[in-house]
Amino acid sequence: MRILGIDPGMALVGYGVIDIENGELKLTASGSIRTEKDKKVPERLAEIMRDMKELLNMYSPDAVSIEDLFFFKNQKTIIPVAQSRGVILAVIEESGTPIYEYTPIQVKQVLTGYGRAVKKEVEAMVKLALNNQVLPKLDDTVDAIAIAITHARTMNIL
Amino acid sequence: MRILGIDPGMALVGYGVIDIENGELKLTASGSIRTEKDKKVPERLAEIMRDMKELLNMYSPDAVSIEDLFFFKNQKTIIPVAQSRGVILAVIEESGTPIYEYTPIQVKQVLTGYGRAVKKEVEAMVKLALNNQVLPKLDDTVDAIAIAITHARTMNIL
Repeated sequence: MRILGIDPGMALVGYGVIDIENGELKLTASGSIRTEKDKKVPERLAEIMRDMKELLNMYSPDAVSIEDLFFFKNQKTIIPVAQSRGVILAVIEESGTPIYEYTPIQVKQVLTGYGRAVKKEVEAMVKLALNNQVLPKLDDTVDAIAIAITHARTMNIL
Repeated sequence: MRILGIDPGMALVGYGVIDIENGELKLTASGSIRTEKDKKVPERLAEIMRDMKELLNMYSPDAVSIEDLFFFKNQKTIIPVAQSRGVILAVIEESGTPIYEYTPIQVKQVLTGYGRAVKKEVEAMVKLALNNQVLPKLDDTVDAIAIAITHARTMNIL
């Protein structure tokens, strides 16, 4: 089973493609879609739309696992992140790929066993799960890979 | 010149198509894209994506005028509205149509001359501008038509 994990954002959309075969995890691809801050918002969103379509075409995942978004007080980046996330969800839905959403607390709980784990602890568990595999650009994509692994574990295939 | 005005939302995206010729305003179309509350969010966003493409194909506007979105405290609907707005902006940008954004205060200022006007006052000025034309489903689309008129007046063609 192939899972595409997505960490949505406006300047940066992190992604990770994992394959699970017989309970073995393989990191097939990871990277990020980046948009330039000096471009207009609609232009950046159209880029995210095109690049997401390309990602889906390139990797044909069986499922997409994406971070859920919540409203917090004074969370001023919420509008750009939500606008990007809307584009991503629409493109994935249009491709017919099933979408699963997980909260940051669920990701931490599944990866580390502790819903309030810090970023470094999640990163350590992702590295452990990927066990010696080459990890290009892990910094930007660790959350996306973590979300993909969360789905695999929630489905009990890993 | 043909302007498509958009009032973004998740359950309801209002739209109005106006044509300006020699300083005369004609309401060519108005209506709304509606999505059902019991459907999943990605499905509703994909519907908005498809319907927006269809609107653009059907009316080929020269410009789109859309309401800007701001962060306020405790504005709990901001995530669904922003997700829908992201999809709308990406689709319009992809079509190559120029996009203009106006705040609610700008719309009120341009329509009524007063940035703190109430909804009824804006509605009255929209009706006045449309002067005796048949107005189907005005309730849902008055904001979208107001945004379209705001752009026409800002461009000094009305």
